[in-house]
Amino acid sequence: MSYARLAERFEEISHLDHAHAMIEWDQATMMPAGGGEARAGAIGALEEIRHALSTAPEVEAWIQAASEETLEPWAAANLREIQREHRRNTLLPTKLVGARARARSRGHGIWQAARPANDWAAFAPALEEILALEREAASILAESLGTSRYEALLDGYEAGGTLAQVEALFAELREFLIPFIPRAAAHSRARWGVDLEGPFDVEAQRQLGEALMRDVGFDFARGRLDASAHPFCGGVPSDVRITTRYDEADFASALMGVLHETGHAKYEQGLPSDWTAQPVGRARSMSWHESQSLLQEMQISRSRAFLVHAAPRMREAFPARAAAQPQAFSLENLAQVYTRVQPSKIRVDADEVTYPCHVMLRTSIEVDLVEGRMEVAQLPERWDAEMQTLLGIDTRGDYKDGCMQDIHWAVGAFGYFPTYTLGAMRAAQLFAALRRDLPEVDDAIARGEFDGVDSWLRERVWSQASLLEGEALMEAASGAPLSCEAFIAHLETRYGDAK
Amino acid sequence: MSYARLAERFEEISHLDHAHAMIEWDQATMMPAGGGEARAGAIGALEEIRHALSTAPEVEAWIQAASEETLEPWAAANLREIQREHRRNTLLPTKLVGARARARSRGHGIWQAARPANDWAAFAPALEEILALEREAASILAESLGTSRYEALLDGYEAGGTLAQVEALFAELREFLIPFIPRAAAHSRARWGVDLEGPFDVEAQRQLGEALMRDVGFDFARGRLDASAHPFCGGVPSDVRITTRYDEADFASALMGVLHETGHAKYEQGLPSDWTAQPVGRARSMSWHESQSLLQEMQISRSRAFLVHAAPRMREAFPARAAAQPQAFSLENLAQVYTRVQPSKIRVDADEVTYPCHVMLRTSIEVDLVEGRMEVAQLPERWDAEMQTLLGIDTRGDYKDGCMQDIHWAVGAFGYFPTYTLGAMRAAQLFAALRRDLPEVDDAIARGEFDGVDSWLRERVWSQASLLEGEALMEAASGAPLSCEAFIAHLETRYGDAK
Repeated sequence: MSYARLAERFEEISHLDHAHAMIEWDQATMMPAGGGEARAGAIGALEEIRHALSTAPEVEAWIQAASEETLEPWAAANLREIQREHRRNTLLPTKLVGARARARSRGHGIWQAARPANDWAAFAPALEEILALEREAASILAESLGTSRYEALLDGYEAGGTLAQVEALFAELREFLIPFIPRAAAHSRARWGVDLEGPFDVEAQRQLGEALMRDVGFDFARGRLDASAHPFCGGVPSDVRITTRYDEADFASALMGVLHETGHAKYEQGLPSDWTAQPVGRARSMSWHESQSLLQEMQISRSRAFLVHAAPRMREAFPARAAAQPQAFSLENLAQVYTRVQPSKIRVDADEVTYPCHVMLRTSIEVDLVEGRMEVAQLPERWDAEMQTLLGIDTRGDYKDGCMQDIHWAVGAFGYFPTYTLGAMRAAQLFAALRRDLPEVDDAIARGEFDGVDSWLRERVWSQASLLEGEALMEAASGAPLSCEAFIAHLETRYGDAK
Repeated sequence: MSYARLAERFEEISHLDHAHAMIEWDQATMMPAGGGEARAGAIGALEEIRHALSTAPEVEAWIQAASEETLEPWAAANLREIQREHRRNTLLPTKLVGARARARSRGHGIWQAARPANDWAAFAPALEEILALEREAASILAESLGTSRYEALLDGYEAGGTLAQVEALFAELREFLIPFIPRAAAHSRARWGVDLEGPFDVEAQRQLGEALMRDVGFDFARGRLDASAHPFCGGVPSDVRITTRYDEADFASALMGVLHETGHAKYEQGLPSDWTAQPVGRARSMSWHESQSLLQEMQISRSRAFLVHAAPRMREAFPARAAAQPQAFSLENLAQVYTRVQPSKIRVDADEVTYPCHVMLRTSIEVDLVEGRMEVAQLPERWDAEMQTLLGIDTRGDYKDGCMQDIHWAVGAFGYFPTYTLGAMRAAQLFAALRRDLPEVDDAIARGEFDGVDSWLRERVWSQASLLEGEALMEAASGAPLSCEAFIAHLETRYGDAK
């Protein structure tokens, strides 16, 4: 009875989340500039109403009473997820919630202006203010959750995630990568391939993207592809909105971006439709979400097998460009271009091999910042030193493409970064398990047949939503606890030289 | 103090209305079919939360207390509008509100299926159920408002509108139109012109529409044009979303549709920005909204002066089509095509002269239905008889394009129809007043200069929002109470033969 009331309340909240998701998508894709002020007001009001509905006194009472009720497994897991959300939402004093929101909003604005100007001195004080508030919030959450301060923030993106797990996995991966990266980069330089030269018509790019989305199983009756400045996956499970950014000079990167977002989208589209209005029906965590985008992009779409399917479609999409540069559009060259390795300053442009270094660097820094073992003033020096150690790159004096390159800290999102690389590890481990079950999967992919992959993921991951805790899901889906093993094996196979 | 609280509450409500408007626009323009169920849930939830916020017990108390406060004129008018909305929202018992919503939703579905099948027998029982509930609601509202039942419904679209006014104006107009229509139709047949032959590229149509929207003052920094099955004007004043429907065979109709919606949009864009979050900042009423779309479409855009400006742009938009049929694209022919008169069955396709007959027919029928002087079973016979009298058209047996052609009754929107023709009268009277103030207006329009028109309308109408009651605004803006005079003079001038 109390559980039923809770479920009803969270269904109401899901309707607000629907409106919120759609007007955020609209803001990024459709809204004219003049609509911004009213839109910010609408989003703020939806958030306030949502907060009031989810933290109302009766919710606490319903949770207590529902804990005494006998519930079937999905309902029990739903209650667990409701409780988890409710605890995080109610622990922080209203005054701190407001101060945090204002500091994040201000930080975002200062970062947007200071980053292009390479102006660390302008950004640092804002970051200090944000960090102080995040530390305060983390302390309150940590005390109640019985975790470290950093873990309390990590838990907001990765429910139940532990720093011990992250640090153990990252230490092992780091040990592998430091000697591996120079080898992989040298090997890549030796088979660099030739660049594809544009211009590539944007409408043709869009059609190619939609065709490949359709091939890999995106359901256009329940979603769309549009353009936005920053690609993302939004909307709701029955209406998933993904976006991309087109560049006339380079179709290849945007296309992989589309397939990456398609991986996110297929997870959403595959969530159990009976539970989409409840917390248990949501994607398991940020690292799980990233595992599905990276499985689609890295494990599948950058593979030679996929390019056997995709290369002819690329040539058909740009017939004049392909005729003018047959070598560039060859399968061999596309495979080389799509698996290039080269250490660089920028995380979002990094290849699969060097990307984890960007994440490990940020994670180690943000752990120390949140735990109070380091201050903002020390950030640039620490950044430069780690970039030198990990990737052999000199970033001194370059804040713009150094420690100011990401939006995350500017908006107070401490604890998010590790989920990218946890996702890459999950993707590799899941795909290795899938390949054990479907040994012919590469042949199927080369033929453009993705049903086997989809059925496997649907059964093991998508349909499970948040029924299990993250690591229990990992064991159930892949047959083993999360480790670096499959990811390292994947990197060795794809990027290691034969020597 | 209480007024300030009320204003704060209605600002919160305006944020919900923003989200509601945007996801309704999205539903009509962007949403894939699979998103419909979740969208309906979200819209329903927003409506419920809005209703709860606007009818909460404290609102009543604040209204009482605010009535004792000294308020400046806009705030006082805002209180009046808040009170008006609050009264309508709280008078009806929750059970009736729910029954009405369900009957309307069911009625919509039945109408959608029964209309194409010309199946009156399937539709009639649904309409009976809807009418019974509307009569019940009208009785409750009428008792409190001190109006007739029909007026109580009319008041929902046309605040303060009276049946006495509608009937007096319509009687006078009818007396003019019955002899005038055959004359105007004969005159039109004598100078019918030639049809413009397509195909007209849809993208070129869109660009032409946007160019003319820009010319007449639509602000694209605060709005968009998109395509939808049924054209409408949605969004919010700082972000107005208008839509059109393209037909490759006929650009001329769609273009006038775009200009019609642009008239609605400019009214919204011209509302006072300080008051957009409050009831007093909204458009005055449905007939006032229609007056602005019809002023743009009928008074301005179908005029010879406007076509002097627009015809060259039409030829540029479709150079091959224009070259192939120079006579069709001539100013003379376009002016003829855009002012054709021909009685027909369908309201939405009707010309300016016969359109009021469609409205008067529906108004007289819905008054009798709501007042209980007539039953649904008598509707087809009454329809056929009036269509014969007013337009000389035989509609017997044709329900699809007869009494089942409109969505309004199917969704319980009794009391809406008269606002179309009240709008046409207001448009003519406002434009006549404008022409007195700006005698050179036709020359300016022919030169593509619309600033004078805009300034006049902005000052007299748009910036006034709902500060005054509808008829007080009419007198203030045009210098006289609403009458048929200007509309009849306009029809005589444009459509009467010289004889």
